[in-house]
Amino acid sequence: MTPIMAKSDAAELIRSARIRKKLTWSAIADEIDAPVVWCVAALLGQHPVPAGQADRVCALLDLDSSVAESLQQQPSRGIEPSLTSDPTIYRFHEALAVYGPALKELIHEEFGDGIMSAINFKVDIKRRADPDGDRVVVTFDGKFLDYRW
Amino acid sequence: MTPIMAKSDAAELIRSARIRKKLTWSAIADEIDAPVVWCVAALLGQHPVPAGQADRVCALLDLDSSVAESLQQQPSRGIEPSLTSDPTIYRFHEALAVYGPALKELIHEEFGDGIMSAINFKVDIKRRADPDGDRVVVTFDGKFLDYRW
Amino acid sequence: MTPIMAKSDAAELIRSARIRKKLTWSAIADEIDAPVVWCVAALLGQHPVPAGQADRVCALLDLDSSVAESLQQQPSRGIEPSLTSDPTIYRFHEALAVYGPALKELIHEEFGDGIMSAINFKVDIKRRADPDGDRVVVTFDGKFLDYRW
Amino acid sequence: MTPIMAKSDAAELIRSARIRKKLTWSAIADEIDAPVVWCVAALLGQHPVPAGQADRVCALLDLDSSVAESLQQQPSRGIEPSLTSDPTIYRFHEALAVYGPALKELIHEEFGDGIMSAINFKVDIKRRADPDGDRVVVTFDGKFLDYRW
Amino acid sequence: MTPIMAKSDAAELIRSARIRKKLTWSAIADEIDAPVVWCVAALLGQHPVPAGQADRVCALLDLDSSVAESLQQQPSRGIEPSLTSDPTIYRFHEALAVYGPALKELIHEEFGDGIMSAINFKVDIKRRADPDGDRVVVTFDGKFLDYRW
Amino acid sequence: MTPIMAKSDAAELIRSARIRKKLTWSAIADEIDAPVVWCVAALLGQHPVPAGQADRVCALLDLDSSVAESLQQQPSRGIEPSLTSDPTIYRFHEALAVYGPALKELIHEEFGDGIMSAINFKVDIKRRADPDGDRVVVTFDGKFLDYRW
Amino acid sequence: MTPIMAKSDAAELIRSARIRKKLTWSAIADEIDAPVVWCVAALLGQHPVPAGQADRVCALLDLDSSVAESLQQQPSRGIEPSLTSDPTIYRFHEALAVYGPALKELIHEEFGDGIMSAINFKVDIKRRADPDGDRVVVTFDGKFLDYRW
Amino acid sequence: MTPIMAKSDAAELIRSARIRKKLTWSAIADEIDAPVVWCVAALLGQHPVPAGQADRVCALLDLDSSVAESLQQQPSRGIEPSLTSDPTIYRFHEALAVYGPALKELIHEEFGDGIMSAINFKVDIKRRADPDGDRVVVTFDGKFLDYRW
Amino acid sequence: MTPIMAKSDAAELIRSARIRKKLTWSAIADEIDAPVVWCVAALLGQHPVPAGQADRVCALLDLDSSVAESLQQQPSRGIEPSLTSDPTIYRFHEALAVYGPALKELIHEEFGDGIMSAINFKVDIKRRADPDGDRVVVTFDGKFLDYRW
Amino acid sequence: MTPIMAKSDAAELIRSARIRKKLTWSAIADEIDAPVVWCVAALLGQHPVPAGQADRVCALLDLDSSVAESLQQQPSRGIEPSLTSDPTIYRFHEALAVYGPALKELIHEEFGDGIMSAINFKVDIKRRADPDGDRVVVTFDGKFLDYRW
Repeated sequence: MTPIMAKSDAAELIRSARIRKKLTWSAIADEIDAPVVWCVAALLGQHPVPAGQADRVCALLDLDSSVAESLQQQPSRGIEPSLTSDPTIYRFHEALAVYGPALKELIHEEFGDGIMSAINFKVDIKRRADPDGDRVVVTFDGKFLDYRW
Repeated sequence: MTPIMAKSDAAELIRSARIRKKLTWSAIADEIDAPVVWCVAALLGQHPVPAGQADRVCALLDLDSSVAESLQQQPSRGIEPSLTSDPTIYRFHEALAVYGPALKELIHEEFGDGIMSAINFKVDIKRRADPDGDRVVVTFDGKFLDYRW
Repeated sequence: MTPIMAKSDAAELIRSARIRKKLTWSAIADEIDAPVVWCVAALLGQHPVPAGQADRVCALLDLDSSVAESLQQQPSRGIEPSLTSDPTIYRFHEALAVYGPALKELIHEEFGDGIMSAINFKVDIKRRADPDGDRVVVTFDGKFLDYRW
Repeated sequence: MTPIMAKSDAAELIRSARIRKKLTWSAIADEIDAPVVWCVAALLGQHPVPAGQADRVCALLDLDSSVAESLQQQPSRGIEPSLTSDPTIYRFHEALAVYGPALKELIHEEFGDGIMSAINFKVDIKRRADPDGDRVVVTFDGKFLDYRW
Repeated sequence: MTPIMAKSDAAELIRSARIRKKLTWSAIADEIDAPVVWCVAALLGQHPVPAGQADRVCALLDLDSSVAESLQQQPSRGIEPSLTSDPTIYRFHEALAVYGPALKELIHEEFGDGIMSAINFKVDIKRRADPDGDRVVVTFDGKFLDYRW
Repeated sequence: MTPIMAKSDAAELIRSARIRKKLTWSAIADEIDAPVVWCVAALLGQHPVPAGQADRVCALLDLDSSVAESLQQQPSRGIEPSLTSDPTIYRFHEALAVYGPALKELIHEEFGDGIMSAINFKVDIKRRADPDGDRVVVTFDGKFLDYRW
Repeated sequence: MTPIMAKSDAAELIRSARIRKKLTWSAIADEIDAPVVWCVAALLGQHPVPAGQADRVCALLDLDSSVAESLQQQPSRGIEPSLTSDPTIYRFHEALAVYGPALKELIHEEFGDGIMSAINFKVDIKRRADPDGDRVVVTFDGKFLDYRW
Repeated sequence: MTPIMAKSDAAELIRSARIRKKLTWSAIADEIDAPVVWCVAALLGQHPVPAGQADRVCALLDLDSSVAESLQQQPSRGIEPSLTSDPTIYRFHEALAVYGPALKELIHEEFGDGIMSAINFKVDIKRRADPDGDRVVVTFDGKFLDYRW
Repeated sequence: MTPIMAKSDAAELIRSARIRKKLTWSAIADEIDAPVVWCVAALLGQHPVPAGQADRVCALLDLDSSVAESLQQQPSRGIEPSLTSDPTIYRFHEALAVYGPALKELIHEEFGDGIMSAINFKVDIKRRADPDGDRVVVTFDGKFLDYRW
Repeated sequence: MTPIMAKSDAAELIRSARIRKKLTWSAIADEIDAPVVWCVAALLGQHPVPAGQADRVCALLDLDSSVAESLQQQPSRGIEPSLTSDPTIYRFHEALAVYGPALKELIHEEFGDGIMSAINFKVDIKRRADPDGDRVVVTFDGKFLDYRW
């Protein structure tokens, strides 16, 4: 028996096929009717993908069923440490270093003692045109959870 | 001569006075006509505060001029490592671990090779009412910078 | 103006007074009508303590109002790294190293993709008599949160 | 001669076969008459599995005897560092950061100087129905060991 | 109120007084009828010292009762990281790096799956005369604990 | 040319063959007339094994001469970091955290300024029967080396 | 399907072919009309290489199209940690340890609150003849970005 | 006797006095006839300052002779780890992560096996006007040292 | 095309061949007319080896030309972290922990502000007979470099 | 009672007094008839100083007896981590990274399996005149210790 393909291998095959097929992530997300950030994160291995969607992605990208099988598995979530210093990702961490404690103060001021959920949570990214240069606008939207015994 | 007060000491005095005066961060931000996340970050030591605003904050909070002097200084920016595991702040880091590589893919797909600036940048936080529980909505909004030699 | 007392200093005073007064943590928890694990965690600085309870603790322990003021503040939560290798605390970490991945498998099997909340959460500790030596029984009880976009 | 299969490889094969056979961990635990958390931990490589049980698991999952041989070996116990930040596992660590020192205080108050054993120890996990959302209830149950010279 | 003296401060005072009084650790251990390694570890802050013994140590060393009060407290156990590279202590760590896995094999061969307790445990140190140079002989003696569910 | 087999690979083959041949480490140590802890450490790769002994081990275990060649090599000594948190090995580290500074005090009191050698050094492990549960007794025996310019 | 070649593998092949063909980096940079530091960095995997340039490099070095395909991909940028202590690279880090805070002071003095961009940025390296020994002259040239909300 | 003032304390006093006197670093460098980057680095504690220059700085800033005494001492050079993530300083480290290995290749191509000295070394910083936004230009200029036995 | 052999692989082949040919490092150094420490370091991958010497080493050891090609490459210098705790190497680090700051004081006292070069540098090792046991004598000999702007 | 002065405080006072008295380390070493590297290391806190020498140092430097008392204490040896990256000290570490494994090979070739003692050990530093620039010559001289059971 061969073990189920690792989700990182599946992600690598998906990335490669997407590029060779000249498909955008948005097109793939549309194909499977999923929000685009969720879709990319899931195909990179951060969410289990329901069977139907996994199959459709593999059909679109001409990948075989072992990839679809892998996509459906429950992941261990997280990021490779080396990726956190990639400049595109690092800027988000830098923003949290500068504004994280301020966000904490304002969450507690507005909502009381608790947190923004990272589970009941969604992210969106948009381009906003601006005469001084277009802008990346990323929205984190999570349910407030109060500390409750 | 005594050295200029450390910005962390100024922040501690501001936090204490704000609480004892029962003032919200929003009220302080209004008083100095500043966006609220910027204002809190600046008073916690992450931005130099222009003299006029520094003075108005100190007047409002009955703090003496050594605090205002400290607020005007150029900071070294960053976060104490122990704060990154406070649950309210940690959830943002967890979201980046799960969605950071997906955001990177989508920034490159939409804008090409480059980053969201963390310098030409603003953050906002809002409460969004929701029947299943109100939500914390945080928006990161930074100018796209392309890798340009 | 003096800043509000650090929660770690308040905790140190409470620990000392409790010992000198020969009061148990349980007695203090009873006095303020709070679950005992919550009460100890809160007095050690991990939860904001409502004003009435903070005052009653200080009255009981003959501590002045600056301690009560400190107890009411919103904390930054977390543990000093050196404490994680204290043997009494370390055994819990060792148990998670051995059983954590198994618990993850079983949470997903029973509930699907999601987590046990550490916010909507309570802990209890009991002594269970056993002829082979009494046992420490600690119960973690948190709401299941499913990954929901 | 080929060396005995690494326990991590055996675990990977078991995980894969379990999923393809559509068997739950509970069903496997029942088949080998073992407590379910112990069973999953053992099959993931944290406990030596007695020969009879190892054979029954392999028969159930159609795995060959090299897997059963691996399962019987004495493990080196521990968790891959990357797994500790998986959100499902991380919440347990966060709970220990918040409540660990309180649990230490209460163990000493109730039992004196000593620890909860992580060796003479069992863990259980249950679902508790709750109108506000079902709950994950995990019980750590270890013999108290007093510091004894 | 002043908080109870930190155990590290008590240890510093005891070390200083011991040297100025020209007393050996062995003499102190005899005075309080305690095994010498236990005694030194306890006075350095690693074990709570019963009241009678704490008082006798302070009387012997002319230290006041705040030291005795500190000695009686439950410690958080552990070693300052910088001490682990002191050559006298480091050699023990080096020996464990070289022989630790061999000791693990032999514990399992002789006793089965389990550990040597570090709680139900004692250490002794002796000088053994040897024509090639006297030897330091340190004995670790801990109860075997088998993994028992 | 193929390079000499890595000592970690030789160790893995020896472990596997020992188990399949149902030989104890003690039996192997007897076969090569070596102290048992030295023997296990050496076969796991921590000491060069003289040619005669290396050959006898390989004959006993039916391993080919490439294993014997590897065993004879000079090692780089040390332990894989992940092994230090295996509970059986960790308890020794915990004991050093609690008692290391006390051992240092007593070595200096008895011998003056210097260390216990970890090179001119031997370790032994014994089972000591005890009505309250048998005990693991490990003896570290090293030559005292005084700081000498 | 085989995944797209990793950029580190492409870099390894380019390095090897360059040496065997006895071509300098400068000659390659000239061939593709690119600044030399950009060119080397890009071929080592730090920038996506436009298709035309990627093809010309592969033609020059007799490498097949899978290398050119790899060169065109968007990289994750960063350096292997072990490389930062190579003496040739380390000296730059040492210079930043000694002069970094001074550069920060002078950037703020000259430009106000902000940074030198590392994205809108170029580097050049020159040899400067000097009777006391020729000198390495490296110029970092980045757009100033002011903190702008 | 009081010990010589720590260089970090001297730096703090110099920073404070400079700001209150409204003097630029350039003005101070001019006053002591020193290159400006060297001057700032030296006053922040990274170089011993010759007595005459130390005295002139203190006279200019109305600081007493204990500061001048401190400035003259031989430093231990280095940067506080927390400063390396200040965004203004971090961008230099990011540039080295992206371009460091390329600079290494080109140093070896042009000069052979060796390094750019960080000791026989100077740094300069300039503003370069640019219609797309002025630029920070930093030049590292170090003697080439070849590996020479 | 196959990439040039990694220097670590070349080193492994050289080590193996040297042992099987029963050649000493000194004999190899003599063969290529090189100082012995330089020779061993270079063959282990820390220096580029000139073509003639690389060929002679490979001829002596019956290694093919791909090894000689690898030896000639410019290395990235450094040590695997795990090797620094090998006892034979660790003692040098321990000596630097104990005597490093003293050597720094004395370098500055004798030479002024500067360093011992590690580039214009040689090392030698000798055996010195001594009635109390022969001694390892290692000499570090580097050009003094003064801090010079 | 005041505790015995910390050795780091004694070192700070000695450094300061030495500079103010314009005494060289060599002059102090001569005064107490000690090898100069030993003397500096000891006064910086790395060796206990015999009473007579401690007194003579304090008389020479006009320091009071509390410094002499501190000097006589048994130290915990080691270096502050921040000092290891001071360039003067770092070059020694870099040399060990480059030549450490070669020294290990040659120690084993010449002496067999064992180490250079860092306890029965001395260091010397000399200036060697050289037309190309004077050289720092540091000699490590330690007794060979063979691994002996």
